[in-house]
Amino acid sequence: MRAVVFEQYNTFPSLGEVERPTPGPGEVLLKVAGAGACHSDVAIYKEFQEGQPGSMPPSFVLGHENSGWIEEVGPGVDGFTKGDAYLVYGPVGCGHCKMCSKGQDTYCENAATMPYLGIGLGRDGGMAEYVVVPARNLVPLGDADPVAAAPLSDAALTPYHAIKNSLPNLAGGGRFALVVGLGGLGQIAVQILTALTGATVIATDMKEDAMARAAERGAITVPGGEGQVERIREITGGRGVDAAFDFVGATPTIKTAQASMAQGGRLTVVGIAGGVTEWSFFTTPYESTMTNTYWGTIEDLYDVVAMYRAGQIVPDIERYAMDDALEAYRKLEAGELSGRAVVVPHA
Amino acid sequence: MRAVVFEQYNTFPSLGEVERPTPGPGEVLLKVAGAGACHSDVAIYKEFQEGQPGSMPPSFVLGHENSGWIEEVGPGVDGFTKGDAYLVYGPVGCGHCKMCSKGQDTYCENAATMPYLGIGLGRDGGMAEYVVVPARNLVPLGDADPVAAAPLSDAALTPYHAIKNSLPNLAGGGRFALVVGLGGLGQIAVQILTALTGATVIATDMKEDAMARAAERGAITVPGGEGQVERIREITGGRGVDAAFDFVGATPTIKTAQASMAQGGRLTVVGIAGGVTEWSFFTTPYESTMTNTYWGTIEDLYDVVAMYRAGQIVPDIERYAMDDALEAYRKLEAGELSGRAVVVPHA
Amino acid sequence: MRAVVFEQYNTFPSLGEVERPTPGPGEVLLKVAGAGACHSDVAIYKEFQEGQPGSMPPSFVLGHENSGWIEEVGPGVDGFTKGDAYLVYGPVGCGHCKMCSKGQDTYCENAATMPYLGIGLGRDGGMAEYVVVPARNLVPLGDADPVAAAPLSDAALTPYHAIKNSLPNLAGGGRFALVVGLGGLGQIAVQILTALTGATVIATDMKEDAMARAAERGAITVPGGEGQVERIREITGGRGVDAAFDFVGATPTIKTAQASMAQGGRLTVVGIAGGVTEWSFFTTPYESTMTNTYWGTIEDLYDVVAMYRAGQIVPDIERYAMDDALEAYRKLEAGELSGRAVVVPHA
Amino acid sequence: MRAVVFEQYNTFPSLGEVERPTPGPGEVLLKVAGAGACHSDVAIYKEFQEGQPGSMPPSFVLGHENSGWIEEVGPGVDGFTKGDAYLVYGPVGCGHCKMCSKGQDTYCENAATMPYLGIGLGRDGGMAEYVVVPARNLVPLGDADPVAAAPLSDAALTPYHAIKNSLPNLAGGGRFALVVGLGGLGQIAVQILTALTGATVIATDMKEDAMARAAERGAITVPGGEGQVERIREITGGRGVDAAFDFVGATPTIKTAQASMAQGGRLTVVGIAGGVTEWSFFTTPYESTMTNTYWGTIEDLYDVVAMYRAGQIVPDIERYAMDDALEAYRKLEAGELSGRAVVVPHA
Repeated sequence: MRAVVFEQYNTFPSLGEVERPTPGPGEVLLKVAGAGACHSDVAIYKEFQEGQPGSMPPSFVLGHENSGWIEEVGPGVDGFTKGDAYLVYGPVGCGHCKMCSKGQDTYCENAATMPYLGIGLGRDGGMAEYVVVPARNLVPLGDADPVAAAPLSDAALTPYHAIKNSLPNLAGGGRFALVVGLGGLGQIAVQILTALTGATVIATDMKEDAMARAAERGAITVPGGEGQVERIREITGGRGVDAAFDFVGATPTIKTAQASMAQGGRLTVVGIAGGVTEWSFFTTPYESTMTNTYWGTIEDLYDVVAMYRAGQIVPDIERYAMDDALEAYRKLEAGELSGRAVVVPHA
Repeated sequence: MRAVVFEQYNTFPSLGEVERPTPGPGEVLLKVAGAGACHSDVAIYKEFQEGQPGSMPPSFVLGHENSGWIEEVGPGVDGFTKGDAYLVYGPVGCGHCKMCSKGQDTYCENAATMPYLGIGLGRDGGMAEYVVVPARNLVPLGDADPVAAAPLSDAALTPYHAIKNSLPNLAGGGRFALVVGLGGLGQIAVQILTALTGATVIATDMKEDAMARAAERGAITVPGGEGQVERIREITGGRGVDAAFDFVGATPTIKTAQASMAQGGRLTVVGIAGGVTEWSFFTTPYESTMTNTYWGTIEDLYDVVAMYRAGQIVPDIERYAMDDALEAYRKLEAGELSGRAVVVPHA
Repeated sequence: MRAVVFEQYNTFPSLGEVERPTPGPGEVLLKVAGAGACHSDVAIYKEFQEGQPGSMPPSFVLGHENSGWIEEVGPGVDGFTKGDAYLVYGPVGCGHCKMCSKGQDTYCENAATMPYLGIGLGRDGGMAEYVVVPARNLVPLGDADPVAAAPLSDAALTPYHAIKNSLPNLAGGGRFALVVGLGGLGQIAVQILTALTGATVIATDMKEDAMARAAERGAITVPGGEGQVERIREITGGRGVDAAFDFVGATPTIKTAQASMAQGGRLTVVGIAGGVTEWSFFTTPYESTMTNTYWGTIEDLYDVVAMYRAGQIVPDIERYAMDDALEAYRKLEAGELSGRAVVVPHA
Repeated sequence: MRAVVFEQYNTFPSLGEVERPTPGPGEVLLKVAGAGACHSDVAIYKEFQEGQPGSMPPSFVLGHENSGWIEEVGPGVDGFTKGDAYLVYGPVGCGHCKMCSKGQDTYCENAATMPYLGIGLGRDGGMAEYVVVPARNLVPLGDADPVAAAPLSDAALTPYHAIKNSLPNLAGGGRFALVVGLGGLGQIAVQILTALTGATVIATDMKEDAMARAAERGAITVPGGEGQVERIREITGGRGVDAAFDFVGATPTIKTAQASMAQGGRLTVVGIAGGVTEWSFFTTPYESTMTNTYWGTIEDLYDVVAMYRAGQIVPDIERYAMDDALEAYRKLEAGELSGRAVVVPHA
């Protein structure tokens, strides 16, 4: 079958033929409906050096944002019907530690000894005609379009998890939320916040068109640059925001979010730009918290699918045939995509 | 000044002259902007017998849903400006027990020894040109219309408090809420649920026009009668609702809500029709809870005002001049009002 | 190998030879350390009729409270070392629904189509020399005694889960908890409440010796009969209890708990005696909730093991050799056991 | 009456005669039982410069940790009996903002325009024979010793509030808590954590005797210096602590706490030494939060009193007659006190 393969560190992936896999015990073979191309893939094949923390040794098929139809089940798997559509939870932990027991494989206690982090992350992913995944990683899509759904397994699950943890901060009338960085995840964060809370959503980015799209989705936009924090505070009546989400994670974006917090607010850094900031008692509004987060849980992905099916999350996607999969990555690198590129192997 | 006075048990109130009150220590005199006429008032003057639990001895000015402008402050009161508009938190507890310390006077630990329950509830209320209230019961309205705001102090505060306690059950995608009874409180409950959660809101009532109004506000309506519970469950995909609010509280409405619950759901009975139901382990979905609630807290009222100012709560009201105040009560008793009647003493 | 087998409905189990099982995909073969005899077993073989809800068709090996040492792993299982000791989570759901994804197999959404409920509950259990269990059902015991641990998988996990859900009600100083029914689960509930909360623990039972044991563990005991609720309320200063746990679940015990509740309290019925009670707005302290619960989650079992290892949970057990396993059931039926009977197949 | 008066910035207080105050509207005159001497007092009279943030202009009577007996009530105050003992909540906000409405005067929204922060903090405090306090600031002590209680209004309320906010992190078996700094507040934090949670409490300080006292109260102690973080992590099995409380707040203590956190843990800086630390995504365990806190709420103080009456909080105090009040401050400055100094004006 055809697949996009990460073959060597610091090398653009190739489109080639690989053997169609067979599901092992507890696994399922999916006929791929869609596979999203994500910035993390670029990190995998372009940025990481061998042995660097976070690097995953080649070769393997890329694609950690996947959906597909049941094709075949492995030994010990019951309760699936061929042809049914599923979205795939990407992380794969040891499966039997405390964190995996609750479907939070992202924080697997045995991650250090696992040979991979997830599907398309050290083991073969979904940028192929077929992909093998653990049965417990499947979330049913019913009759919803599986192609547009594919990127939700990361681009919606990640903001959903961050927002879910902040819902207590946003519970009630008169709350304010801040979204910093309006790329794929930030745009979906605006949709999730608008749907799940009554908060006034403030969104900020350097790109005008990204802000325009967020504004269409109900956010009040504030441009970056001078006066940014003052303007955010002004919208909140001086009080600051009850929850902030930084999808960039660079030093200036974290500092912007920090300076915008209300007493008791929660700032979650999601973006992995690696920024560093200062924390001190006297510059922190009382009881406001600062934290980070990574991806989400299987349970969260059920909620994401419910929101997708209800029309509360509408991903911006561009479809690519398998023949054009490498073109999708080229555009992704070049910043020429306006939505998430989804590779559709079976047209 | 003119006022609507409850003069005797089981007697329609009168419109008469009473002395304009003077604010005592810690109190404020408000020039009344609006005073809502509530079904509880009818209970006070028409239904209760002397000495019956819940009865309040005459005579006093009615009106527990009040708004107004600062006219004069009593001894020990600072920080108010004449003419500023405020909404009034109605309950008045002892002011120094644990529950009052957190602004939940509804559950005052010394309620049994208090001479009244609140403003217009045993002590003079707002159906008058002026009313005296404790300074801490005031929530600023800014430049929002104080007349339409008046009934929110009960008709929105009560559902808000019930819903706030249920927000953890509704936090996330794919949740379902049920509103039983679409009178004044139920209609506002639909608005609050739609604004603050991503839940699918299911609403039910015996009146077609009440359901039509709820549908306009985004609810899926289900008529009462045969098949009601089946239809509710069908909407939820069989699972049941994550939170239900019964604004009637009669035996059949409670049973409908009970039969509609999902595992882990929360059923709150708000209506005081006094229904009785059965509870048993095997007929209760696991970990679903059943509870009741009464009015709200001062903090809640701040949130209600924020939602009102943001246009998330839009009360249906009919304005009445002081001359027509008794007519408002007559229509209320006759069920001829389509919105909340608000008496406006200063036209 | 030798095993205690449930062979026919309404028939005392037999001790016989069965074939040693082989672990399938995702499964592990345990050499059994201990298997607890539970009242539910008596229901399985003695009380249920064929086809009755809750019944499980014979034949299978009994024992749903199990611990053991890794003997062999099935296909697709990694990360276990022969000889390591584990406690076994008993429930087994479909493994790929939303509830199973978070290790709450007790509420598996596909339970209706599953051929069994758990290990020793429709599929072979641990009253044998060896037992096969899903790898994800294993919680490591380290160097703690696995024999005494066995019954914790039910007799501690069930109260732990009920208490965990009530911890918000008990969080802080000046709280009160009530335990109704001081058999195996109730005794451990007293230990868990004493360890995890600062609450005053009130315990009640009809048996003097059970109350004496609870008193040794720090509970204030109140005998059943006249004045019981008055005495409970008196201990709480009139306010009532913040959390109550009824491990009996009969109509009178539920009513006792109901009558003891404080405003905002949580009453959890755990016992399955099938009692029925009335619920009404005016007899329920405001915002007090009423619910039920069933067993627990894998994550909970990790916490239970941590408490066992820390000496916070000390089970009362009586050890029985495999030869005496049926004697253990006879004593259990006759009420002649003072602790949990644990069958130890490998002496 | 005699009183300890802060007369000038950067000047040791004086013991002199002042007029006995009269309670205003909503206020109560207390006959002082005990007044605790706190490090904050030293900051007030010794460290702050005029106009510096946090400074309070002289002159006023010191003492913000007070208890006493009702002597006289002001206008508009009901429900108190002369001679009854109360503990005093120290902060005094505007009384009618959202934060004050829920008894959290520490975060009063009008603090900037208030002439004082609390009793003994800009207005006359309890280091005198009598003190005037707002009626709502009183928490009943019943028959408990009011003298030993006095310092609890700060030295217990502050750690209680910080711990209360962290109880969700410590809810369950197998949790770990860290207390950094074992002065007055840290010692009480150990007691509160031991009473309210099942967590293993780890305590650290530079002073041997402080650690010995914490060890007597059930903490595992870890000395400062090299290997400190490694030793803390080792006690937790490598995982880190679920909640940390830094009662110093210097850069090194904050960094120690940060380096000791578990995934999902909560670090609360309580001490105001003004340390500054770095925060970055990659050095923060996932979803662990960092925050600060200041004093507590009236409701919290009710819980503190309940714990004190139950013997769960036992303050270390040294009693001083009014004549020796200045000596108490001298010893406090010199670090010669082994417990909290409480001035007892009526021997």
